[in-house]
Order: sequence, then structure tokens, then C-alpha cells
Amino acid sequence: MLAVHLESGRVEVRKQPLPRVPHGFARIRMLAAGICSTDLELQRGYYGFSGTPGHEFVGEVTAADDPNWIGRTVAGEINLACGQCDWCARGLGRHCPTRTVLGIVQHPGAFREFLTLPLRNLHRVPKTIPVEHAVFIEPIAAACEILDQVRIAKNDRVAVLGDGKLGLLIAQVIHAHGAEVHLFGRHREKLSIVKGIATELIGKKLPERAYPVVVDATGSSEGLRAAISMCVPRGTVIMKSTVHGLVPIDTAPAIVNEITLVGSRCGRFEPAIRLLASGKVRVDQLISEQFPLNRAPEAFSRAATKGILKVLLLPPG
Amino acid sequence: MLAVHLESGRVEVRKQPLPRVPHGFARIRMLAAGICSTDLELQRGYYGFSGTPGHEFVGEVTAADDPNWIGRTVAGEINLACGQCDWCARGLGRHCPTRTVLGIVQHPGAFREFLTLPLRNLHRVPKTIPVEHAVFIEPIAAACEILDQVRIAKNDRVAVLGDGKLGLLIAQVIHAHGAEVHLFGRHREKLSIVKGIATELIGKKLPERAYPVVVDATGSSEGLRAAISMCVPRGTVIMKSTVHGLVPIDTAPAIVNEITLVGSRCGRFEPAIRLLASGKVRVDQLISEQFPLNRAPEAFSRAATKGILKVLLLPPG
Repeated sequence: MLAVHLESGRVEVRKQPLPRVPHGFARIRMLAAGICSTDLELQRGYYGFSGTPGHEFVGEVTAADDPNWIGRTVAGEINLACGQCDWCARGLGRHCPTRTVLGIVQHPGAFREFLTLPLRNLHRVPKTIPVEHAVFIEPIAAACEILDQVRIAKNDRVAVLGDGKLGLLIAQVIHAHGAEVHLFGRHREKLSIVKGIATELIGKKLPERAYPVVVDATGSSEGLRAAISMCVPRGTVIMKSTVHGLVPIDTAPAIVNEITLVGSRCGRFEPAIRLLASGKVRVDQLISEQFPLNRAPEAFSRAATKGILKVLLLPPG
Repeated sequence: MLAVHLESGRVEVRKQPLPRVPHGFARIRMLAAGICSTDLELQRGYYGFSGTPGHEFVGEVTAADDPNWIGRTVAGEINLACGQCDWCARGLGRHCPTRTVLGIVQHPGAFREFLTLPLRNLHRVPKTIPVEHAVFIEPIAAACEILDQVRIAKNDRVAVLGDGKLGLLIAQVIHAHGAEVHLFGRHREKLSIVKGIATELIGKKLPERAYPVVVDATGSSEGLRAAISMCVPRGTVIMKSTVHGLVPIDTAPAIVNEITLVGSRCGRFEPAIRLLASGKVRVDQLISEQFPLNRAPEAFSRAATKGILKVLLLPPG
């Protein structure tokens, strides 16, 4: 089978044997997979990664101990937890200290014809969700995580900074929750994608001390500073931008205004699947381009191009 | 009367007229005042400050509309709030956007023979608390603020980083609350001040992913990074170090481990007075030196000396 291999910044497509299926695991035929900003960071050397990346995918189960799974269309949670530690017992396998992570830490990812994951990581994808849309379940879950971590009341004013893929999903998820979302971005055409949400093209000056909740999804090192200054005293800033390296922040305003900064990462898949199935989160306009797996180098290069949103990889043509 | 005047880094003692007493205010004869790290930061140019600093004090009311206050020994909350905005209505005058702040923002401070504050800022100091100890009510309140902001259960393991004045108070306050406190510092003699609390001299390596709550009271720009690495996933880091300038932090571990960072500043005086009166927080060994007001330049210089804890200013001899 074909698999993407990332090493020292180079993207290659290699031939590999089919992966073995350990007890409790499924072998999954990849139907579509999304290139995420994290994949581009891995390419740049984040985590000293080498191997097969890819953690946003939808696929069909082709092998598993339990025959009920065979033929199912599935999405999969990306953290492979031990299932036995205190974290796992609390339902927080996403923080299991010995976990591996699909396509990120010690478990080959989804940018290959067949991948493996434990059955307990899998979620059935309803037939009403097109395959290309189901790829977004993982990043929508990451957006939903905010609502699991922070109490946001309906009608609360929430600012979302950043009109990239994740910012556009977060704005929709928090809007669907009932809050009054204001999405700030630098790209008129991206901002126009979200419907029914107030958007603002970032000009010279951002509003100060204006929002009880601000989400930084800019992916830039200035985003956090801007988010802190936009937040009211005693408000909450959600940190969704994993920026590689050190981020200089002025902690004094965060302390003087007693702001709470919340680091936020992966989330549960169930609410993400419900939001996507209900049509409350729309992703069709987030897909910029699609490439077969054998053209992965080109796909990576396009994904890193300014103005491009989600690039999908599909099975080789 | 004599008043300390701070300008462009210079500490002077000047003669000034007695301050006027506006309606609703008290004139207070300073009995003792403490030099805080913030005062040293003001000296270094923080907030572009010039004027009379000082916000930790105890005094005797000598003039007020309400005669019941005359002769009372008082401590005073430092934020002079408008009393009319939404913040004030919520009991959070400490965040009132038009507030002035005693000895910090637009209201002359306590390093003078007589100061003024609104009557509503004053708290009676029980006679059982010696004057030199009552000076610590303000910083103890800042330590208590942590318990108002973050839910810390009895027996929770809490790490406090920093054995300066504030770290020593925070450790005692959280210990008195019933949590299992581990105080980390670089000075054996300072760590020995707190009784009944586990202390650890910082060596090469701090424990990682070890505490659900970590308080950074180091006053250094490395403190926050250390605190994040000591915190368990989904744990809380309290930011108590107001460091002047930009602090480079690696946000990735805070995001991957979904850590919450909470900025924390001034607190309510009531619990601080109770803790001091009960003897659960001890401050006698925190007082390094005492100077009469006319020797303020020397007092500031001593307060900035390595190894010195609290320096008090007293009325001119």
C-alpha cells in the first residue's frame, strides 16, 4: 500500500506492507484525510517527528476481531490511551501519560491507504454525512472541547480571533451553542464563509476589555497578546493556537485584570458528529482542494499556501 | 508633614501640607507601612509612576465625617472604585475601570505621615494584631484571593514556587485552608520560616506533571515556565508574579496539557484579618528591618537587597 512519509521537512510517498492488526484494533481503509496546521508544524520539525502523519480522517473498517465493525464508516479519536491509569479511569485518556497519538506521537497516521486504531477509539459516522465532511469531525471535536472546559452561557459575547480552518469551526460551534459570536480575521473571503455570525475584518485597532470570553485561534504569536487585551477583567481567554517555540507575553495585564487563560486541545467526538449531522456546523466551503494520496507532496505544498483552507487527501486514483 | 516622593528612580523625603479630606473620606495617620516588590517596580519605572508610593499600611483615623471612625486603627483596601459601575455593583470594585489605586495609580500612597482613603475602603484592625503585623493584611488578602478564584479542596497537593514575601504568605494561607502545600525556594533560611509546611530547596530539576495546582510567586520570568511544567494535565497555574516586560512562555505544553493559567491580584481584607488574628498566618519572621519615614531612601535600598524580606516604614522618630 502507499503511505506518506515525512522526514526532515521532506514529504515522500512510499510503498509499505499492510499494517498488522493487534488484538482490540481495527484496520481501516482511508476514505479521506485532512491536512491540519499541526501536520505542517510536524513538517517544520515540531516534536522531532518522522514517519506517517495524519490524524483527521474518515475510513471503512476492513479487519477487526469483532465482525460487527467490518464495513462500517468510522472516524477515530487520535489518542491511544493505556485504558488502565487514573486518567483513563476518569474518561480523560486524551491526557493518559503513556498514550501514543495517531500521526503525531509514536503511532503512524492516517495519510496511508490503511491505518490502525483501537476499536474503542472508533465512532460510526452516520450515512447522512458525506465522507469529505466527516474528515472535519476531529477538528470540530477540538472546537467543542472549549464548551467542555469553560462555562459559556447562551447569549454570552464571545470573540474568536483568527479566520483559519480552526477559527471558522470554533466560531460555528460556539454560535450553535447559542452564544453571540464575533469572529475577527484578516481575510474578507474567509470571514464570508460563516453565516449568521458577526464578522470583523481586523483593522488597526482591536476592541479592548470588550469580551468575557476570547478564543485565540490565530496560530500566531501575537494572537495571545491581542486576546488578553480584548478580554474583560476576570474574563477567559482560550488558547487554541499551538505556536512552535516561545511566545512572548506581557503577563502584567493578565494578572492585573485577573484573566484566566485556558489551554485547549482535543475533544470528544460525540458532540462533533451531532453538530455536523444536524447541519449546524457547515464545512463544505472549508475544503479548498483534494488530492489523491500519491500526490501528497503537492497537497502539502498547497496546504501551506496563503489563503488555502482545508486540503484533503483521498485514496490513490 | 513628611512624604516619600518617587521620581525617575529617586526616592526623596519631602515636606507637604496635610492632605484635604473629601466627603466620604478619612484622614489616616500612618502607624506602619510595608515596602512591597511592586514599590520597587514603581521605582524602576513600572506604570511611569511619580509621586508617593505605598499601599500596605496600618493607621489611625484622625479625621472623617463620621465621628465613629475617629481614633480607630484601620487597614485599607487599595482600589478607590467609582461605586456606581457594573463592576462595583458586583462587589468587584477592584476591577472598576475608572478606579485609582493607593500609591500606584493617581492616588498618593501610604509612605507619608497622613494619607487619605474613602471610609468604605477601611477595615478595623483588632487590637490583638500588633501594628507591625497588620501591615501584612494587604498582601495576605492578595494571597487569599487565590482561594476566591480557584477551587482548592482540602488535601489537594499545591506547589508554591518562590520563597519571597508573597510566596511565604501564600504557602501559609493555602496551608491554613487545609491543602497539602509544598513550598519551593532557593533560600534555606527563608524556607525555614514557615512551620508545618513541606519545603524544598530548588536544585537542578523540579518535579514535572506533579501538582494539580501550582502558584508562581517567584517574581522571575522563568517562574511561569517552571510552574507550567510542574502542573498535571488539566491542572491550574496561579500567576502571582507581576514581572515587568515580556515573559517568553512555551504555550505548547500549556495547550497540549490543557492547563489553566489564572491571573491573580488583590483580594478581600476580611479573610486576611481573620487569618492574621487567629495566628494561622505568622508574619513576625517576615519583618527584616524597620526605618522611620525620614530614612525612606535607605529603607528602599535595603528592601531591594538580596535576602531581605519585608522592610517597614514607621512615623518619623
